[in-house]
Amino acid sequence: MQGIRTDLAKEAVAFDEKKEIEGIDVFEFKTDDDITVNRVEVRNQRGAEEIGKKIGKYVTVECPELYDKDEKLLAKVAHTFADEITKMKDGCGKAENILIIGLGNRKVTPDALGPLVCEKVFVSRHIKKYLPEMIDSRVLEVSAIAPGVLGITGLETAEVIDGIVDKIKPDMIIVIDALASRSISRIGTSIQVSDAGISPGSGIGNKQKAIDRETLGIPVLSIGIPTVVYAYTIASEILLSASIKTNAAENQISNVIGMIQDIEGSDMIVTPKNIDMLIQNSSDLLARSINFSIHKDLTEEEIKRYMS
Amino acid sequence: MQGIRTDLAKEAVAFDEKKEIEGIDVFEFKTDDDITVNRVEVRNQRGAEEIGKKIGKYVTVECPELYDKDEKLLAKVAHTFADEITKMKDGCGKAENILIIGLGNRKVTPDALGPLVCEKVFVSRHIKKYLPEMIDSRVLEVSAIAPGVLGITGLETAEVIDGIVDKIKPDMIIVIDALASRSISRIGTSIQVSDAGISPGSGIGNKQKAIDRETLGIPVLSIGIPTVVYAYTIASEILLSASIKTNAAENQISNVIGMIQDIEGSDMIVTPKNIDMLIQNSSDLLARSINFSIHKDLTEEEIKRYMS
Amino acid sequence: MQGIRTDLAKEAVAFDEKKEIEGIDVFEFKTDDDITVNRVEVRNQRGAEEIGKKIGKYVTVECPELYDKDEKLLAKVAHTFADEITKMKDGCGKAENILIIGLGNRKVTPDALGPLVCEKVFVSRHIKKYLPEMIDSRVLEVSAIAPGVLGITGLETAEVIDGIVDKIKPDMIIVIDALASRSISRIGTSIQVSDAGISPGSGIGNKQKAIDRETLGIPVLSIGIPTVVYAYTIASEILLSASIKTNAAENQISNVIGMIQDIEGSDMIVTPKNIDMLIQNSSDLLARSINFSIHKDLTEEEIKRYMS
Amino acid sequence: MQGIRTDLAKEAVAFDEKKEIEGIDVFEFKTDDDITVNRVEVRNQRGAEEIGKKIGKYVTVECPELYDKDEKLLAKVAHTFADEITKMKDGCGKAENILIIGLGNRKVTPDALGPLVCEKVFVSRHIKKYLPEMIDSRVLEVSAIAPGVLGITGLETAEVIDGIVDKIKPDMIIVIDALASRSISRIGTSIQVSDAGISPGSGIGNKQKAIDRETLGIPVLSIGIPTVVYAYTIASEILLSASIKTNAAENQISNVIGMIQDIEGSDMIVTPKNIDMLIQNSSDLLARSINFSIHKDLTEEEIKRYMS
Repeated sequence: MQGIRTDLAKEAVAFDEKKEIEGIDVFEFKTDDDITVNRVEVRNQRGAEEIGKKIGKYVTVECPELYDKDEKLLAKVAHTFADEITKMKDGCGKAENILIIGLGNRKVTPDALGPLVCEKVFVSRHIKKYLPEMIDSRVLEVSAIAPGVLGITGLETAEVIDGIVDKIKPDMIIVIDALASRSISRIGTSIQVSDAGISPGSGIGNKQKAIDRETLGIPVLSIGIPTVVYAYTIASEILLSASIKTNAAENQISNVIGMIQDIEGSDMIVTPKNIDMLIQNSSDLLARSINFSIHKDLTEEEIKRYMS
Repeated sequence: MQGIRTDLAKEAVAFDEKKEIEGIDVFEFKTDDDITVNRVEVRNQRGAEEIGKKIGKYVTVECPELYDKDEKLLAKVAHTFADEITKMKDGCGKAENILIIGLGNRKVTPDALGPLVCEKVFVSRHIKKYLPEMIDSRVLEVSAIAPGVLGITGLETAEVIDGIVDKIKPDMIIVIDALASRSISRIGTSIQVSDAGISPGSGIGNKQKAIDRETLGIPVLSIGIPTVVYAYTIASEILLSASIKTNAAENQISNVIGMIQDIEGSDMIVTPKNIDMLIQNSSDLLARSINFSIHKDLTEEEIKRYMS
Repeated sequence: MQGIRTDLAKEAVAFDEKKEIEGIDVFEFKTDDDITVNRVEVRNQRGAEEIGKKIGKYVTVECPELYDKDEKLLAKVAHTFADEITKMKDGCGKAENILIIGLGNRKVTPDALGPLVCEKVFVSRHIKKYLPEMIDSRVLEVSAIAPGVLGITGLETAEVIDGIVDKIKPDMIIVIDALASRSISRIGTSIQVSDAGISPGSGIGNKQKAIDRETLGIPVLSIGIPTVVYAYTIASEILLSASIKTNAAENQISNVIGMIQDIEGSDMIVTPKNIDMLIQNSSDLLARSINFSIHKDLTEEEIKRYMS
Repeated sequence: MQGIRTDLAKEAVAFDEKKEIEGIDVFEFKTDDDITVNRVEVRNQRGAEEIGKKIGKYVTVECPELYDKDEKLLAKVAHTFADEITKMKDGCGKAENILIIGLGNRKVTPDALGPLVCEKVFVSRHIKKYLPEMIDSRVLEVSAIAPGVLGITGLETAEVIDGIVDKIKPDMIIVIDALASRSISRIGTSIQVSDAGISPGSGIGNKQKAIDRETLGIPVLSIGIPTVVYAYTIASEILLSASIKTNAAENQISNVIGMIQDIEGSDMIVTPKNIDMLIQNSSDLLARSINFSIHKDLTEEEIKRYMS
């Protein structure tokens, strides 16, 4: 498991072959449309340490055929995921004034998912506030900002969000971020929502303040899609398979690990060649699901009309 | 003057033919390199009302040949303007921790100046704070963020900045914004710095909270370059000339004004066809001047090395 | 009329107040959806000289409400314009192998219409040729290329197209270009198709070889939407109104024309502030109409599925 | 070697441990600045088959420290590579009218190298031809076009180039393309020039006509920088090491190869997370080397002035 990184709780749980881990509940089912819904709950600190994920709920919606971009299937996945967001949102209390935060660097294609979703969600707060008579009372107050990354702004993301929350006083935060998975088959085909919060840039090694209920004082949902597998993860996985299959001595395998450590230092990722299209499609899907979930009393047509 | 809009105090002053306006001081000179420096000070409320600009100092550096993009001339203009920023900065007190704010919408080319400057200035706060041993002690603490516009984020720009200021505690703010002038000859060839603060989006008609010393509690410099002339401004100017030259009766001219009012409602601008290049060149120039002024103890080479 | 430039034959005809111009036929009607269709035919050289447009047919579809972006209206305009393309296409002979050319500079926002349409039309030639079994026999052979502009490539557009035509042997060319109109109210709200051919960059003053039936040996349809009004056009128009209304002496007006000549040299345009959105919406509309017209036996859903 | 793909002749040669391959000459040296220059000549068909590269010369310039982006080192690498281009160019005959072709898809970041280089080279043909008095006689005739990719245009790249060559009659072609290497350490740090021609998109599996001296009738230099390693290449390499080190039975290893074949079908690449910056820096370097080589009688300052 060393050297393998994943942001998906589902994958973190799957490392352990044994059926049950203490402190972790897993429940998985398929919808009629062959969409897999996986719910992981990390109930206590022991479970958290076991799988390396914070206490909280994590739901993954998965559909390998997403890549074929069939419009009907896309709509079903968007609605299935919207339902999961809604359930988690409802479990967190009132959410009538929601601030959406798009993490990541818009100038780095594999990292631009969060900022792009911000451009595509239905933002209504300014109309609700300044021109309330122009908008349906069913429309909730939604705002959205992409605060940039520490290396570009010089500002910790958590500080920026904290400052905005103090002024805007939303009752819920939804954070969007590009994820890393351990399997290339999940790139662009899985979506995760969690109430456990998020640490920006935690994959790169720099320790930044967490963005969660504890630090911000309001519920934080984090939503993402895997857009990359770290090269050292894939190398480690192949090695793992090789070592199991060849029954090689531990010390022989460890030589090869040295080779992989070169990769580790290099910030190399595995991603589809057409990463640009992956990011566009993934941000479309997330924005759609979020719009469905927040404005579940509006039809998709009504949302579109407001956004045009 | 009705129907004519300008963000340049120099142009606002020039409306009045008479030499002196009470409450307004004007001083203008040329450098050896034929760069014009114009200093306007609005000293009291009467002057402010007279020219429609807030109390404060406004300095414009002008060089019509900027368009030829001669590297030597560009460097001179950048240094001349950097000196003016420095003088105004020094007049405002200590500035060791500076937050740069890029106003405007990065997805609307003529409005993208502020966000682009943020990408091009030397940002150092995160290194000063987390890896101080890696950076020269002469480097000041600089951060930079482009908070987006109300219509996209749903958030008032002043609120977002206020929230960030509360957490970051900078001792000075520098706000960058694309300006409107009344003369197409000033597009891309004039640069203004002011300590009077700014009202985001004030040109479009929506009233947003001001970003100034009064609202934020720290000095605010605002810097910009004209990138457009509003179409109704240019129409009004031509009419004005026509009416003077033809000695037409007022009521005849007013008919034509009706025609121009159609333009007024249309948010049409006058700008160079290659607006994209104008915005790139203008943001380069501003970022360079700001880097020179903030880090006047470093050479341009040293700044470049830190940024690479 | 001096100093006023338009790429729309409809506007060129409208300069002359008298009802009929010899050599020019005009026919205009409104559809049930209040869309105006205007057909101009320049029948002979005398007519051509009179309005400054080459011999040929010009059809304009106009709908001022396009700006509201109502999806139903957009679909109607796209279908109405598709019908006009089809009629003109049918009048030119067989069109089973069509090469679409996107003129303009993709790095200059107001000029990027042609290249963007190329990205959005349904291109099928490679599939028809290399994988014919994978595609419906009703799909025609369509290819699309944006050859760039002389100032960037060093190549005359007509030479590049001529070379490609020699190898590919299409039976029809459709050229897309951003147009200039004389009225800001037509920016983004009019669409023109013509069989008279086009001279790339002719608006900028450089004389390039024409792209038409005579030079290429096959029918050439040219399609465009006004995205700008040249600043000197709008200035001239205002002056014209002013001079008519004020009955000013010719020589007085000519003084003001001097002022306008400064504008003329400056390549300044009038365009909406959100030029980026105008170009996106206009290229969507054109691509849709072209897809409808070329593949009139396919439904919009079928076209979308092929393109996903 | 099966499953391992590289566009670098240097790497193809290195597969074979034995010192000499019949039909292949290799010569390598280091400059005073620690830049490695590697010259491979594939002299006959037997050599070509042995390493899977066409008959011709291949020169690679390598500098692992390129990533640190030190301006002095960059200039040295650019000049060293320019010298190698010049030598190869001189060996091909007269080159006074050069057409530069940027292969690849500008909308797919890892593939956008060629189009970007076209935007950054000094293009002079139109000035030489239409305004010869405005330009130094030492400036050669250079044009540059990025013809797009088959999947987007529906046109075979070789056909498009062939058509343009017929009209423009250049005496040499320089083709730019993003390369794949077998080692992540060469991404962004190696540059190759070859006179053997190129087959566009040959890495993706589709067989397109070659772009070489034989098909076009004039010398073709191809220049590129590795921007990716295919995921199946890196997987194969790790396996190869693992199998050597563990002395595992062939059939055991072959099981693992099955796992890797999933990767093979997926068009997954390994690339730096900041692929956008890699492409910008690599295109800067290539354009600079090409400008130096073509206009070796002009200084860098003179070239810059012409391009501004």
